Amino acid sequence: MAVYTEVGDEELKQFAANYDIGEFLSCKGIAEGIENSNFALTTATGNFILTLYEKRVDPDDLPFFLGLMDHLAEAGIPCPTPVHGKDGDALRSLCGRPAAIVTFLSGMWPRRATPGHCQEVGRALAEMHLAGSNFKMSRINALSVKDWRPLLARSKDHADEVAPGLAKELAAELDALEKGWPEGLPSGVIHADLFPDNVFFRDGRLTGMIDFYFACTDMFAYDLAICLNAWCFETDLSFNVTKARRMLTAYRKVRDFSTDELAALPLLARGSAMRFLLTRLYDWLNTPKGAMVTPKDPQEYLAKLRFHQSVKGPADYGLD
Amino acid sequence: MAVYTEVGDEELKQFAANYDIGEFLSCKGIAEGIENSNFALTTATGNFILTLYEKRVDPDDLPFFLGLMDHLAEAGIPCPTPVHGKDGDALRSLCGRPAAIVTFLSGMWPRRATPGHCQEVGRALAEMHLAGSNFKMSRINALSVKDWRPLLARSKDHADEVAPGLAKELAAELDALEKGWPEGLPSGVIHADLFPDNVFFRDGRLTGMIDFYFACTDMFAYDLAICLNAWCFETDLSFNVTKARRMLTAYRKVRDFSTDELAALPLLARGSAMRFLLTRLYDWLNTPKGAMVTPKDPQEYLAKLRFHQSVKGPADYGLD
Repeated sequence: MAVYTEVGDEELKQFAANYDIGEFLSCKGIAEGIENSNFALTTATGNFILTLYEKRVDPDDLPFFLGLMDHLAEAGIPCPTPVHGKDGDALRSLCGRPAAIVTFLSGMWPRRATPGHCQEVGRALAEMHLAGSNFKMSRINALSVKDWRPLLARSKDHADEVAPGLAKELAAELDALEKGWPEGLPSGVIHADLFPDNVFFRDGRLTGMIDFYFACTDMFAYDLAICLNAWCFETDLSFNVTKARRMLTAYRKVRDFSTDELAALPLLARGSAMRFLLTRLYDWLNTPKGAMVTPKDPQEYLAKLRFHQSVKGPADYGLD
Repeated sequence: MAVYTEVGDEELKQFAANYDIGEFLSCKGIAEGIENSNFALTTATGNFILTLYEKRVDPDDLPFFLGLMDHLAEAGIPCPTPVHGKDGDALRSLCGRPAAIVTFLSGMWPRRATPGHCQEVGRALAEMHLAGSNFKMSRINALSVKDWRPLLARSKDHADEVAPGLAKELAAELDALEKGWPEGLPSGVIHADLFPDNVFFRDGRLTGMIDFYFACTDMFAYDLAICLNAWCFETDLSFNVTKARRMLTAYRKVRDFSTDELAALPLLARGSAMRFLLTRLYDWLNTPKGAMVTPKDPQEYLAKLRFHQSVKGPADYGLD
């Protein structure tokens, strides 16, 4: 949890003058969030989220992210809507950082995901994929298969400190992923980071998807693979096939996937596990003790990777 | 900044059933605050603050703190009002911690205090002192003159690491404070921690005073002395006599202080500087590197202490 940049009352007052959303009444840093500084902003017209984009976000990507949220919100997807200033711009600058205000979404993220939550996520993900299909901009996935070997190279000398033989195991897995990585599957805008803390619910209904700052243009089935990893494992790292079935079935009711996509799912799930394993491994080895953000244990994604390596076919994901 | 206890969606839903303030729509941890975990809570009826009291707060003190806020709010003081549950109780339990919901106050705390802010603080402090005079409960100040020597004892072996000769200087100052500490001055409920980050403003008008978790029964002039230290020094630690004059003059318009109180002010200001110096010194020496909370530099209060030692009379605080 982190707020990297403090926003003072005077800076905020000046910033407020750019908008038509009423007097700014309160602005409090939110403890959640890792990449950027987020603030709960209350104005005379309601609640909003103010985000200051920190160094991990490339400013050149911001028009894509904000444009995507505009596009998806317009299409009825429950995502934050950028608030445009009096000059029409959603993206401006505050305290030396790129900054934007987006609408506030109600709901709480689920600490214990249920099969019902997974079903909602499957449906909403498919709706998002369809809604994004006519979005004009594109963004290369900066954390896809071609990026994993350089990422591993930065950690491999110390990887075995996390698990004996890990460097070798990951190198072999990378060979397989690079060799078998599918091409030509249906692609478009994907969220690429739809973890439980990015999805809000009220009374079991999905009310919001947030944090589009890894969104990119990639295979839809890869987004689904990320969600399988993020939502369908229990805390003891066993795979819950009921959750997977509910998620995949709900997804395909909205956007049916082809037999090619279904066949690729185990490999995509391995790739997704590799992607989060590698970033967590790097952060685990390189985050100074006592940093503002506690790194997540890479072991979790090693277990998930090994599960998907063992998958024989769609039945292991709960499909016929 | 810190949220020590995470509140899950399921725990929150159960907790919400105790209240009549509408469906709980959102609950986000706030990065500000050091002692307790605070959350920006949005319900169908508006915004609130949810606080979980952490280990530094004695649960036995909570009825005093919450009762005081009830009392002051009733008297029109702009402070958070505890929200009572359906059973009438404001204090209950959440995630194993004592917990309470209070009303949300608009405004921002000033990063750069102006003489105008100081005037507002003086007025509001006096109004709070008057409003608290018929509050029935009392609480001993756990960080007053008799507590400072034991507090120094816990730091003195390492005090000179902060400033050469500091242990000896503070011991001598303590002798003077213990010997000269006034008795019989007008007393009642004081805030005891009214720093700029505990006071909200809108357009230069004070809109809220928060964080009553050091409030206690002590001399009113000591509260004023704390505010002199917290509000009237510049960032270069020079004393701004204009700010002091505006604060004291605004205070005495609401509750005039006696010549005894005025005469005691320099010593009380030294005592107040000692109190914050000692707790900061202890935290400075004992907070592990990389803790969630960054300790504040005790040197700041050493400089303030020395200023008040040099004070010759009321004119140094801007009074005739």
